[in-house]
This record gives sequence, C-alpha cells and structure tokens, in this order.
Amino acid sequence: MGLNIDRVEDNSGPGHAQPETTTISILVPSETMGTQPQELHGVCLPPQKTTFQKLRHKLSEIFFPDDPLHGLKNQTRLNKILFALHFVFPIFQWAPNYNLTLFRSDVVSGLTIASLAIPQGISYAKLANLPPVIGLYSSFVPPLIYAVLGSSKHLAVGPVSIASLVMGTMLNDAVSYTLNPVLYLKLAFTATFFAGLFQASLGFLRLGFLIDFLSKATLVGFMAGAAVIVSMQQLKGLLGIVNFTSKMQIIPVLSSVIERRDEWSWHAIMMGFSFLACLLTTRQIGLRKPKLFWISAAAPLTLVILSTLIVALFKSKLHNIATIGQLKKGLNPSSLDMLYFHGEFLAVAVKTGAVTGLLSLTEGIAVGRTFASLKNYQVDGNKEMIAIGLMNMAGSCSSCYVTTGSFSRSAVNENAGGQTAMSNIIMALTVLVTLLFLMPLFRYTPDLILAAIIVTAVIGLIDYQSAFRLWKVDKLDFVACLSSFLGVLFVSVPVGLAVAVGVSVFKILLHVTRPNTGVLGNIPGTQIYQDLDRYREAQRVPSFFILSVEAPIYFANSMYLQERILRWLREEEDWIAANNGSTLKCVIIDMTAVTAMDTSGLAMMNELKRMLEKRSLQFVLTNPVGSVMEKLHKSNTLESFGSDGLYITVGEAVAHVSSSWKTQL
Amino acid sequence: MGLNIDRVEDNSGPGHAQPETTTISILVPSETMGTQPQELHGVCLPPQKTTFQKLRHKLSEIFFPDDPLHGLKNQTRLNKILFALHFVFPIFQWAPNYNLTLFRSDVVSGLTIASLAIPQGISYAKLANLPPVIGLYSSFVPPLIYAVLGSSKHLAVGPVSIASLVMGTMLNDAVSYTLNPVLYLKLAFTATFFAGLFQASLGFLRLGFLIDFLSKATLVGFMAGAAVIVSMQQLKGLLGIVNFTSKMQIIPVLSSVIERRDEWSWHAIMMGFSFLACLLTTRQIGLRKPKLFWISAAAPLTLVILSTLIVALFKSKLHNIATIGQLKKGLNPSSLDMLYFHGEFLAVAVKTGAVTGLLSLTEGIAVGRTFASLKNYQVDGNKEMIAIGLMNMAGSCSSCYVTTGSFSRSAVNENAGGQTAMSNIIMALTVLVTLLFLMPLFRYTPDLILAAIIVTAVIGLIDYQSAFRLWKVDKLDFVACLSSFLGVLFVSVPVGLAVAVGVSVFKILLHVTRPNTGVLGNIPGTQIYQDLDRYREAQRVPSFFILSVEAPIYFANSMYLQERILRWLREEEDWIAANNGSTLKCVIIDMTAVTAMDTSGLAMMNELKRMLEKRSLQFVLTNPVGSVMEKLHKSNTLESFGSDGLYITVGEAVAHVSSSWKTQL
Repeated sequence: MGLNIDRVEDNSGPGHAQPETTTISILVPSETMGTQPQELHGVCLPPQKTTFQKLRHKLSEIFFPDDPLHGLKNQTRLNKILFALHFVFPIFQWAPNYNLTLFRSDVVSGLTIASLAIPQGISYAKLANLPPVIGLYSSFVPPLIYAVLGSSKHLAVGPVSIASLVMGTMLNDAVSYTLNPVLYLKLAFTATFFAGLFQASLGFLRLGFLIDFLSKATLVGFMAGAAVIVSMQQLKGLLGIVNFTSKMQIIPVLSSVIERRDEWSWHAIMMGFSFLACLLTTRQIGLRKPKLFWISAAAPLTLVILSTLIVALFKSKLHNIATIGQLKKGLNPSSLDMLYFHGEFLAVAVKTGAVTGLLSLTEGIAVGRTFASLKNYQVDGNKEMIAIGLMNMAGSCSSCYVTTGSFSRSAVNENAGGQTAMSNIIMALTVLVTLLFLMPLFRYTPDLILAAIIVTAVIGLIDYQSAFRLWKVDKLDFVACLSSFLGVLFVSVPVGLAVAVGVSVFKILLHVTRPNTGVLGNIPGTQIYQDLDRYREAQRVPSFFILSVEAPIYFANSMYLQERILRWLREEEDWIAANNGSTLKCVIIDMTAVTAMDTSGLAMMNELKRMLEKRSLQFVLTNPVGSVMEKLHKSNTLESFGSDGLYITVGEAVAHVSSSWKTQL
Repeated sequence: MGLNIDRVEDNSGPGHAQPETTTISILVPSETMGTQPQELHGVCLPPQKTTFQKLRHKLSEIFFPDDPLHGLKNQTRLNKILFALHFVFPIFQWAPNYNLTLFRSDVVSGLTIASLAIPQGISYAKLANLPPVIGLYSSFVPPLIYAVLGSSKHLAVGPVSIASLVMGTMLNDAVSYTLNPVLYLKLAFTATFFAGLFQASLGFLRLGFLIDFLSKATLVGFMAGAAVIVSMQQLKGLLGIVNFTSKMQIIPVLSSVIERRDEWSWHAIMMGFSFLACLLTTRQIGLRKPKLFWISAAAPLTLVILSTLIVALFKSKLHNIATIGQLKKGLNPSSLDMLYFHGEFLAVAVKTGAVTGLLSLTEGIAVGRTFASLKNYQVDGNKEMIAIGLMNMAGSCSSCYVTTGSFSRSAVNENAGGQTAMSNIIMALTVLVTLLFLMPLFRYTPDLILAAIIVTAVIGLIDYQSAFRLWKVDKLDFVACLSSFLGVLFVSVPVGLAVAVGVSVFKILLHVTRPNTGVLGNIPGTQIYQDLDRYREAQRVPSFFILSVEAPIYFANSMYLQERILRWLREEEDWIAANNGSTLKCVIIDMTAVTAMDTSGLAMMNELKRMLEKRSLQFVLTNPVGSVMEKLHKSNTLESFGSDGLYITVGEAVAHVSSSWKTQL
C-alpha cells in the first residue's frame, strides 16, 4: 500500500476571491477499497501557496482582518474618491443628510454633556495636578477635532479620570507642580503630544490589536485600584487638609490622612460630605431610572453653582475653605513653544505619554465600541485610534492635556438623545462661552465640590460584580484582575498594568504548555467519538487507543505531550491487564484541535511513531488541519505515515484499520 | 423547547482512577425527537469538580505530568523503601546486577572518553579563562557524583564548550582574569555553585519544563553563533597572537585578528593549522564510519602528545610558541573558602550561574534524552536536573567549574560500548592518575593544539542542515533560529537567548492572536464537514454558514474573531447575492478546535449572538470541548443558546435545524 500524491486543479473552494492554486490530495489506492465496507475519504493538503502568498495572507490577517477598504471594490473613480473622503473624514458621511430634527436632539444632548463636562473638566485637571482652566481648554479643541475625524456618533470627548490620574502620578514623581509649575506644564503638554503620536501611530500602523492585550479582566482590576486611590486622595479636599502627600500608593495616602488630623476642617467636612451624598444619590437615581438621567447629569453643575454661592455669601466665616480662585478669561493659548523634545525629562514625558495614551485609547475605543454595538453600527478601531491620536496631538499644541471618549459623558449623551458628533460641537461651543465670559464665576468654587465630583465619577469604576463573575467563571482571569488591582494600589500604575498583562500572557502560555488530552470512545450506533470522561454513552473500542490533543504542538509542550501520551498508554495497558481487555494494537491521535505544529512538534511525532513501532503498535493520525498537514508533508513525516496512517475521521480510521486486520488473518 | 439540565451519576468514564463525580448533561426534549430522521445526542458537561479538585488536577498536570511515583502504587512497605532508594540513587538499580562483561565494556569506553576528556578539559578551561588544571579537576569529582545520582547510562560528564564559553564571556565582562585571578576564580566557583543550586531547584520544584522554552530552533541558532565566535577566538592560539581582545562579539574579535597582524607567528600557524586539518580529517572519518570512532576519539590525545614532544624537542627554535607551562600535581583542593556570597560582584556570579546553569542543563538533558531514546529507556528530566545540580554544587566546593553531559563524549561513550555510569567512574579514575602523576608532562603542550581541539569540537555545533530544514518547514522557527544566531554573534549570549525565546513566545501569541478560521462544507454522502478551501468534494449547505475557529478564544483574539466572523458573513452574503443562492438562515460555529475560552471570549460569543439575532440569523454551536462547555454553563451563556443552539456534531446540527424549519412551514 503506497501513497499517491496527486496534484489536481482546485476549482471549487469558497467560490469568491478564488486564487489559482492547486491542492495535493492523498488518495487511497483503489485496490484497498474493495475490502472496505465504507468509502474512504483522503485527507487533503491545503491549496499550494508560495512563501510570498502565505506571507501576504498572514500580514493581511494581522493588519487588515476587517478588510477596511472592501467598500472600494468594483466602484467608479468618483465613488472611490467619495469613499476615501468619507473614510478619512467621517463628518462627510452624516453632514450632507443633517437636518433640523437631528440638530434639535444634538443641541439638547450637547448642552447636557456640557453641564457635566465643565465641572468634570475642572476637577480632572486638578486630579492631574494641572491648573483648572486646562481642563476647560481640553473640553474645547479636542471635541471639535473629533467631530470631524471620529466615526462614533455617541462618544463625548474630553478629559477623563483615569488618564488624568495616571498623568498626575507619573509626572509628579519626576517634577513637583508646586515647585516648578512651568516645567510641569511643559511635560504635561509634551506627554500629551507623545500620547497622541503613539495613538495615531498604533492606528496608522494598524497595530490597534495591541490594546486587546489589556483584557477586560485586567481593566476591571486596574480601574478599581485607581478608583480607590483617587477616592482616598480626594479626602484632601473633603476633609480640608492643606499639606497632603503627593504619592499615589494607598499606604502613604492613608497615613497622610491620619497624620494630618489636626488640619481637618469641620466646615469642609460637613459641606463636602453633604454634597457627596447628594451627588451619589442623584447618581443612583440616574442608574435606577435611565429616564431621569438628567437629574444626575445636571447635579454637578447645580451643586457647583450652589457651593460657589454658599462660599461667596459666607466667605467671612468660611475663610479656611480652599477655592479655585481667579481664572483667566479667554480661549486656548498656543502651547507650541511649551513642547519639550530634549533634556533629562524627555524620557518621563515619553513614558507618561505612552501609558496615558494607551489607557485613554483603551477607554475611548471600548466606549466607542460599546455604543456602536448598542446602536448597531460599526466603528473601525484603527481609524478611531488615528482620530483620537490626531485630536491629542492638536490638543498638545493648544494647551490641552490628554483627552479621550469618556464613558460617563458618552452614556449621558446617548441618554439625552445625541444622534451625531454634532453634540460634541455644541458642547465645545458651550465651553467656548464659558471660557470667554463665565470664568470669574468660578472664583469662589470650593475645592471640596470638585473632590465630591471626582469621587462620584470614579466610584462607578469599582465593578465588584464583574470581579465576582470573573471569579465564578475563570479563576485565572480573576488572578489577572486581582494582580492589576493590588499592583496599582500598592506599587504603581505601570507596574500594576505590566503584572496584569504578564499574568494574561502567562495564562496563554500555560494553556499551550500543558494542554488537555483525553481518551475518546465511540457513541454506539454513530460515527461520533467523544471524551470517555464526559460522555457516559461513549464506549472504548477494543484494541484501539484513541487520544485527542487539544492544543497546537509546539516546542513548549512537545516534551510534555510525549511523556503524557506514553503515560496514557501505560495506564491503558495497566487497565487492560487488570480487566482482561483485548491487546492494544493501534494508537489513534485525533488532530482536529491541534491547530498548529512547529519543528519541535514534528520531531516529537516522529519520535513517538518510532517508540510505538518498537512496541508493535500501529500509529494513526486523523484529521490534521491544513497548516499541520502542510508541515507534515514538507518535513516528509506524512510519507512515513503512509496511506494507512492518516484518515479524515476517527470513524473511518477505526473501520479501515480493523478491517485491514481481518484481511491479514 | 427548553433546556433540561439533568444531574446523573457518572459511572462510566475511563474505568480506572474514577473520581466520584456527577455530570450535567443537556438532554434534548423527547417531543422534538419524533420529527427527526436521526437520533440526537446531547452535548455533555465534563464531570463536576470542586475548585480544589480542579486546582489539584491542574497542578499535578503542571508539575507531575509523568506521574513519577506511579511505581509506588499498590506496593508493600519494603518495595516502597527499595523504590525510594532506586529513585534517589539510580546506582542501586544497576549495581546489584553488575557483572564482569559489563565492566569490560565500561573500562574500554571509560578509557576512551578519558583520552578525550583530558585534552578537552584543559582546552575548555582555557575557553573559560580558567587555569587548565581546573578543567581536569572538573573531570574528576562531578563524574563520580553523577555516577551515583544520574539515571542516564551513556552521559559522559565533564566541562563542555558552550557553558565554558559563556562563563568566560560573562565573568570577563566584570573582572579580568589577568588582573585579578583570585577574584575571577572565586566568581567562577560561586557561579558554579549558583548554577548547581539553580539546576537542582528547577528539578526539585519540578519546573524542568522551563528548559523546553529554549526550543530546538533557538538552540540551533545559538550554538552556531557560539561556535563561530569561539572558532574566531581560537585564531589567537592558531595564529600565535599574544595581545588579543577579551570581548566576545564577532566584530572586536575579527578586528583584533587583523590589527595584530604583526604578531602572527608562522611557526604557530603552520603547526596549528596542520593539527587542525588532522583533527578535522579524523572527525570526518569518525562521522562517516561510526565503527572507526576510535580514530577521532584517540586523535586529540595523540596530537597533544605529538605536539608536546615537538615543542619539547625543538624548544630552542620554537621559543615564541605559547605553552601551558608548569601544572601543579595533586587532587582537587577544597574551594569552600572561595565561595563568595556578598559584595558587589555577587550579582555577576548569580547571573552567570543562572545562564550557564540553564545552558548546561539544556545540553545535559537533551543529550541524556537522545541516548535514552536511542537505547529505549527513559530518563526523568526533573531527576536528572537534581543530579546535575547536586554534582555542580559539590563541584563548586572542590575547585570545579560548571559541568554537564557532553554531547561529543557521550556519543563516543555510546560508540565505545559504554553500558552503565561505571564508564564515568573509570574516566574519573584515569583523570585521577593524570592529576597525581602525569601533570609535568603537559609543561610543553602548546596552546595551539588546545585551540585546534576547541575548533574541532565546536565546528560540529554549526548545524546548517537543521537551519535549512527549519527554513523549509517553519519560517518563524527559522526567524527564532536566526535571531539567536545574530544576537549571540553581535550582541551577547544572554541577549541572543532572550531574543530567541521572545521570538518563540511571540510566535505562540501570534498564533493565538490571529487564529485560522475557515468555512466548512459537507462531503456528499457523509456526515463529514470539512474546509471548502481544502476539500474539492466538500459542498456548501444552502441556507447555512458553517465556520470553524482554530484557536482558544481569549482576550487577545476575541475582538479579531468577532470582526473576522462578521467579515466572513459579509463576504458570504455578497457571494449569495452574486450567485442567487438561498438566503442565509443559520450560522454554525464548529467549536471542536476552540480548546479554551476566557471571559472576553464569553462576552464575544454573547455579543455575536445578539448581533446575529438582530439580523434574524439563528446561531448554533457544535461540539464545544469540556472546559469551554463548563464556562459557557457557568456564565449562563449556554442557557441563552437553548437546546436548539448546541449540537454534538455539525451534521446533527444541520439535520435538526433544517428539519425544524420544515416543521415551521
């Protein structure tokens, strides 16, 4: 019995986008067919491709899995130009069909998010140790740019808590804002520039998939850790403490709170906590009854006005309450001359830019995808990255710090009926009015209301229900979550993230290093072979030992698999000896789930074959996937198996091998 | 149609070592059966296990995949003690049955490997910048210890080229032997101690699988790079250069050779290259005719004697030829007081120990496994690691540096008929005699013969055929190989290794990040569904879209898979529109090769289901593996699929779903 390798024209296949390739199929010689009760089906090699074709296919799967230019196919030149325009500036997709109805919705939602964005902008800027006005600047230019370049209809753009917190921590480790405010500002703008550059490059190089390595589990832990730290830090404002640590680990923050008991101000505490209670209550109302979202959306601005009034009216009695103070009127000044591309702090700026850029990108993309999926449209992750990146690069030249799509404001935007990116424009115009005319009003706004707004915003990031679900469903995901939580809390943000990504990657490696193997049995009356452990009805096939391997066979597991398969065999032989079963004659490995193989795996298969042959056991493979088949062929392993060593299904292998034994008798 | 979750006693399964567990099987309600042409088989959950049981199973698969204590089961106490004794000291396995015939073979092979070990020991010590006598010390104590603890019958223990080279490079970067020989020696012994500690701990903690991460491909590149560098370095001896660079990168070495042209000695060049030619010729003879192995085995010692005689006789004319010089007679002195556990160079010693320990371990284990597999016995990798580790720890206290099983000497040992570890003892005794009586004979041994021996030994490490095979079979393996080659050549040994391991791990991640997906069709007249691209005879099933996913669904690929599946669907719908096919009604995902799923994967499945339902497409999963099934169940995803959303095979799914459409009509 030999092996016929036959090269045939491949003219079936999926029918569309058919390359002119040939397949090599291994045909079972017809003379053996006569003795068979059933027809045999040869195992095919995948269509032959050159190395270059394979590389091109691989690269297009890596960088263009979504085939972003598929709209260009079979189009006229005009349509192609239009498509390109729509592709680069999504505003042209919706602007031509824009009408008054849409505009009315967008005005309402734009004003609503503006009422949130103004107090949050001021608060988040404080979180990043920046002057409050930077938060307003950052709510003006970036939303306008996003409205032109962004493809999400619901994303409300501006400063967000996580990126602000991380920027504040990382820059403050290098330079103190109080000691050297100009250098600090320079570094903040430079970091913003690099964040934008990094984001745009990721999108442009179509490396957007890298943010997927920050898994949901990692982010749950990270955000909870950050939220706990930020909330604790706000005790400064809520308790009225003047001298507070600038560190970001939980231990120095808590000890600072306790050590400074003498600075606690009862006025601040009473006002702060009652505003906080108020905000938390309205937040709960908004969560429970989505129709009443406007209560929670309007609460921050209302309380800012209220607290400002109280402080302004009773300023003689409340002199020990810290306020924002005088703010400069006017639009974003240029910050081009503040960008800083040399000197000893450049590394800090680049690192801060990379981390905040990555984090804000993750948030922005996740929020964009969430609302796109809710409203059933698609956003192209890589394109969104370019939009967010360009918006930050432009922001860094106009006195803005890192911005992205905010989850809370986008949710309010969607609830308030926002239909297009026009709501971002309306919001920016409102901020413009504020910047031009209303800045003096913030003079008496107390810091404690900003602290209360921050606490209310970040408390929603503690998603203990998700953490509990992770524990229930996937213990290793929970470990990744916990390690990023503890890493952020006790060490630092980059370390926490790195540990969590490490745990996630380790999990993948562990799955490959120690894959699952299982013994299969036949479900009587069918051609189905299933795990004996799982299926009661499955039965061992006498004289056969059928094993399934559930992982690619790689250098990292080939030695393990060899030992494990031999152990399975030893246990099987022990069992046969104990139960007077029929002697083992044939070992079948079901390769369906062996999705890849490298040269170590090939060496292992050859070694295993040699060892089994020494024990006079026939060794059969069933249903190898295309890429594995190709490697078996190229390394001549296939030829050593021969035509009676390779079958398309376990059923056919069992039928054919056992009937060949009968023929021999 | 609902979902019956039924808890049943599991009393089948693999029959042996059956835990008392229960399975949850999902039964198809019987009223739907009547309308079916074929019987349906429910998809089972794996046997229920507690978290603790799962953890125990996982840990035992990670650390005890080979079940090393299986010999202990069902044994009497005496047998258990005997087993333990055999387990810890493999010498007790063979010593009781040792006889004169075996002894005769072992004496022949022991003397043969001694004749190789003595010149190689001296040469390799020079490679590590150590005094030549250390190489002999290292060929005395470690083989004796290995003979007691080691389980390989053919491993010939002693210094090896790679570990010597790496130790020389890494220590020389920190301390110069010529400037501070005592500190250098201290560091060498300390590094040896840590290498042994590291090796023994890896074995003891059963972390031996970590060395599998140095894949064959990586090692091929690494060894070739090291061999090129070492050969180039030997030009110092072969050309008779006195002042030579101590750096280990290819560029400084080559420029040193060229810059020092004035130091080239024509006496040295003529002698050196004729000895080298002689050694290479005998090596070729040994390789071509394995029976004549003794020619290549005896050549080094013969040439050492010959060259020593030449230099001794013509010393007045050959005064510019460097020789080994006076060597101290006597056994290994204790080096306990040389171990160095504090101070600024401790980190260097620990790092050198870790790298040389890892490399020598990899070589020793690979050699042991190779000969075990040739002679059909098994070596326990973790036990071997403990043996090699203890041998190095003992060596570090008796003036030895890092030793392991040498590939070349083990091959000679096997060829010369070595039967047990006794050949190591015979070799050690020969070295003992040399140390005690023959040391003055080496006084006039020229350095150039040592250089020629080293070149001959390392040139065999350049395995260009393997590299070519890697290129042919697996391009990414070749990249790993090439990067370790170039890394070692141009940067440094640890960097080269780290890059290669990085490439290998990246390959695993890439496979997971961008898994293969394919559209399946039915092979007419069977229940077989196969890739339409690969199988000409496979045909699309009208109204169905059947996709197979060939990877675990993880955070790293869930977003990609979602986009890729939607793109497949879009292309399918385009194709249907162009070919007037029947409308798509049902999407089936074959989960056979989805070997694991995490919480991101679960979220993706739910999202995909929601999106398909919006398009009025039925979504069906077939044959999820046990662990995936469990996660689908725990996260309540399974329940949302219902009983008509989950089938054991694609065939049953197609039959049942299409017959349910007929019932509805």
